[in-house]
Amino acid sequence: MTGRSSAGLSLKELSEIACAKLRGDPQRMIRSVATLQDAVEGTIGFLANPRYKSQLADTAASAVILSADDAADCPVDCLIADNIYLAHARVTTALHPFDVADPGIHDSAWVDPSASVASTAEIAANVYVGPGVVIEDDVIVGPGCVLLEDVTVGQASRLIASVTLCAGTKLGRRCVLQAGAVVGGDGFGLANDQGRWVKVPQIGRVVIGDDVEIQACASIDRGAIGDTVIADGVKIDSHVHIAHNVQIGEHTAIAGCTGIAGSTRVGAYCTIAGAAAITGHVELADHVHISGMTTVTRSIRKPGTYTGTIPATEHATWLKNFSRLRQLDDMARRIKALERELGVLQNREDGHG
Amino acid sequence: MTGRSSAGLSLKELSEIACAKLRGDPQRMIRSVATLQDAVEGTIGFLANPRYKSQLADTAASAVILSADDAADCPVDCLIADNIYLAHARVTTALHPFDVADPGIHDSAWVDPSASVASTAEIAANVYVGPGVVIEDDVIVGPGCVLLEDVTVGQASRLIASVTLCAGTKLGRRCVLQAGAVVGGDGFGLANDQGRWVKVPQIGRVVIGDDVEIQACASIDRGAIGDTVIADGVKIDSHVHIAHNVQIGEHTAIAGCTGIAGSTRVGAYCTIAGAAAITGHVELADHVHISGMTTVTRSIRKPGTYTGTIPATEHATWLKNFSRLRQLDDMARRIKALERELGVLQNREDGHG
Amino acid sequence: MTGRSSAGLSLKELSEIACAKLRGDPQRMIRSVATLQDAVEGTIGFLANPRYKSQLADTAASAVILSADDAADCPVDCLIADNIYLAHARVTTALHPFDVADPGIHDSAWVDPSASVASTAEIAANVYVGPGVVIEDDVIVGPGCVLLEDVTVGQASRLIASVTLCAGTKLGRRCVLQAGAVVGGDGFGLANDQGRWVKVPQIGRVVIGDDVEIQACASIDRGAIGDTVIADGVKIDSHVHIAHNVQIGEHTAIAGCTGIAGSTRVGAYCTIAGAAAITGHVELADHVHISGMTTVTRSIRKPGTYTGTIPATEHATWLKNFSRLRQLDDMARRIKALERELGVLQNREDGHG
Repeated sequence: MTGRSSAGLSLKELSEIACAKLRGDPQRMIRSVATLQDAVEGTIGFLANPRYKSQLADTAASAVILSADDAADCPVDCLIADNIYLAHARVTTALHPFDVADPGIHDSAWVDPSASVASTAEIAANVYVGPGVVIEDDVIVGPGCVLLEDVTVGQASRLIASVTLCAGTKLGRRCVLQAGAVVGGDGFGLANDQGRWVKVPQIGRVVIGDDVEIQACASIDRGAIGDTVIADGVKIDSHVHIAHNVQIGEHTAIAGCTGIAGSTRVGAYCTIAGAAAITGHVELADHVHISGMTTVTRSIRKPGTYTGTIPATEHATWLKNFSRLRQLDDMARRIKALERELGVLQNREDGHG
Repeated sequence: MTGRSSAGLSLKELSEIACAKLRGDPQRMIRSVATLQDAVEGTIGFLANPRYKSQLADTAASAVILSADDAADCPVDCLIADNIYLAHARVTTALHPFDVADPGIHDSAWVDPSASVASTAEIAANVYVGPGVVIEDDVIVGPGCVLLEDVTVGQASRLIASVTLCAGTKLGRRCVLQAGAVVGGDGFGLANDQGRWVKVPQIGRVVIGDDVEIQACASIDRGAIGDTVIADGVKIDSHVHIAHNVQIGEHTAIAGCTGIAGSTRVGAYCTIAGAAAITGHVELADHVHISGMTTVTRSIRKPGTYTGTIPATEHATWLKNFSRLRQLDDMARRIKALERELGVLQNREDGHG
Repeated sequence: MTGRSSAGLSLKELSEIACAKLRGDPQRMIRSVATLQDAVEGTIGFLANPRYKSQLADTAASAVILSADDAADCPVDCLIADNIYLAHARVTTALHPFDVADPGIHDSAWVDPSASVASTAEIAANVYVGPGVVIEDDVIVGPGCVLLEDVTVGQASRLIASVTLCAGTKLGRRCVLQAGAVVGGDGFGLANDQGRWVKVPQIGRVVIGDDVEIQACASIDRGAIGDTVIADGVKIDSHVHIAHNVQIGEHTAIAGCTGIAGSTRVGAYCTIAGAAAITGHVELADHVHISGMTTVTRSIRKPGTYTGTIPATEHATWLKNFSRLRQLDDMARRIKALERELGVLQNREDGHG
């Protein structure tokens, strides 16, 4: 289990880990992180989102990570940080370290003789490791994973459970893949023969950089000819689908249920919020931010935030307004006609004046 | 297989099971349910949706479950019910009972010595049961399931096949999980360090009540610190994604392909139709109904139905109207200007009068 | 791995396979396909999308598949085809043939004694084959697949890996299923009993024709009573959800992340683009094309293209325009009022004239 509580660290140690300023007792021992609301003695909370500020006064936490502004209202010891989320991430990782490999191959796993598995790697129960697979040092391949031929898993990557890496997939170092993720399935490549679809063999691979995360039930398809490429530091949330030959730039994050169609290139340092859809064969520049439930139908060459979300309204209001959408063009023309006719009237009126 | 046909029950027995009024031969034996259209002798159909009423006259069913209003037009025996769907559900369950556990652990399953498996539970082929797992009475863990450490599966729950429960997941009694469901994967918790994303350990769990159903390929993420909580009786359809620290109230149903972002609270007795998206950190009251393909961007505090769906139109119509969306603000301003100028003209005209 | 490079074929052989006109050296040997950009000697590229035409002049490919129009600008040998995508598909399949079964049952697979597995079929590692399953000739069941009782897999179908076929699923011949696909999970059948949901046993099956493809993480639910039916030649992309009792007509293709709700009938030769949503109990005629991110809320009886997509705009533009959506009805009424009042003024003005 991710995040087992350690024996504890002192506030002084945590302040150094978090690059935060300590206010309070440097020797106070902290065992684990907690929410402000559910904290008990020996835990450290954090306050970043102002929605939760009201919980600060009564928290039972032994310490809180927060901003200099909020520190004045903090009734307990605190770590004062510029980037609260980052300080919280570092403190949490120190107190609840990620699993490390327990080296060895489980009796119930099946590893092809031609595969190369580092002696420091852990291959768990009911795993299949195919021909030519390379598993580097400190890798964890959790229960039920399937690695087809010629897959490479880079140093210290962790496949939590039930992950499938299809033939030829290259995974970088320190990647984390959650259960149900599928990498390297065939792209949806079809040619049409007089109405019938003919499958186009998908002979490219998926090539994934270092420090990439892929959440539960996400899928990334192999390239049709060239490769699908996910750069270093990319974070891909649950149920995201990335089609063949897509390229995602470094440190871009893609939230849940989003789909990106074939051959599209997303730049670096982008964020794509949940349930978005990006069409195929377009390019998004670096530092582009797509809002939730937004459809991108053409290339975006300028950094910035782009939106096409229709927010919910009460059903009666919706019925009244949205039926007008089909009249929009008509409305626009009638406004123009009104302006013209009013102009005529005004001119005649001026003549009277 | 779910729903194997039983030896049959009499119409009298079925009327009691369904709490329905019997019209016809109480001794008539019914073996299975069928659609009105495909029914044969010895089967019972049902009529709830008026779309299918035209099939009533010619049905070969031996009996039909329907409303008092429709009974007059029914050419065969019938069970008259107020809640036809419920009567149908009860009759179907009686004739096609759910699978019960065939106790024992399959030779090809791997159960950690520290796990506790009830003697009445069934652990099927190629299953992995990790350290500290607790499996209560009458549970079925179908082929290919993976249960990581410290999972609990409550009494009579059924994991059909290929279900993954990640570390610490607590599942209540009588739950049903379909294939490909993933519960307890890490939430999408990231802190940003000068453009690069840093993973925040997700140390909460997923805690699921009794009588919850989770359909194929749905995923529920563990909490970041506290738990993700799914209350009793919640029904979650295929490809639904529920993010970390979401709370879903009792007897709420969520249809396919919907995504709910982190820390959002959905009330009890809500229905969320398919392909909806709910943003993070908002609250939906009890008895809120969200229409299909609708985006919820803020809290909804009042029961009722909320919609934001844009229905499809013919492409040419769409092209004409939707290009106007980007002119809406301009149109609104021009209407206002027209009203002002018309007012001026009217006043001058009145001066003339 | 799909698409391993063969020893090579001559341009003459490839022109016959592709039904294309050869311009150049018939004896030139081609080993593999490549993109125009990444091609090396001994490879064949293709040019269909005009976006990539600029890569033609400098390609290092030994030959290119293209149209008669583009042939004039091709600096190397070429295959001239009317349907470039189809010619490319045929050439790729010839050079990179699909995997064929390596007959036999892997030691780590578990096959129920009552199952019938053809001697020419391949059952890979960690597979479960349940009671009564029938696996026909030349089938490949890849690692980690689960086939529950009474499943049938037709001749030469291929389940790549980690595919789950639930009880009773019938799969035709030459189907291809990617990893994480789930077929035959229970439909989302619920009856409401005074606020609480009661599960309706789902006793139908999924029946799939020949030459159907189902991509990664897609799911198709079994019928509630009758069957869910996928006709010959249907292509279903990743993360698509097809609910209970849906019927999909022949040679229809459905792109990624689309959801189709229960009992809906989609015609033959339709295309449904990505992230679309189709409501339940409606019918789409043959040759209907649904655009990406489009919601279908009623039956479509006329062939054609239907759209409801809202394209993304810059956030500031969106804020300005989309807030007006809730005023649309008001705007429409004000336009009407303006027209009326202007008419009155015009009449009076004419009186003056």
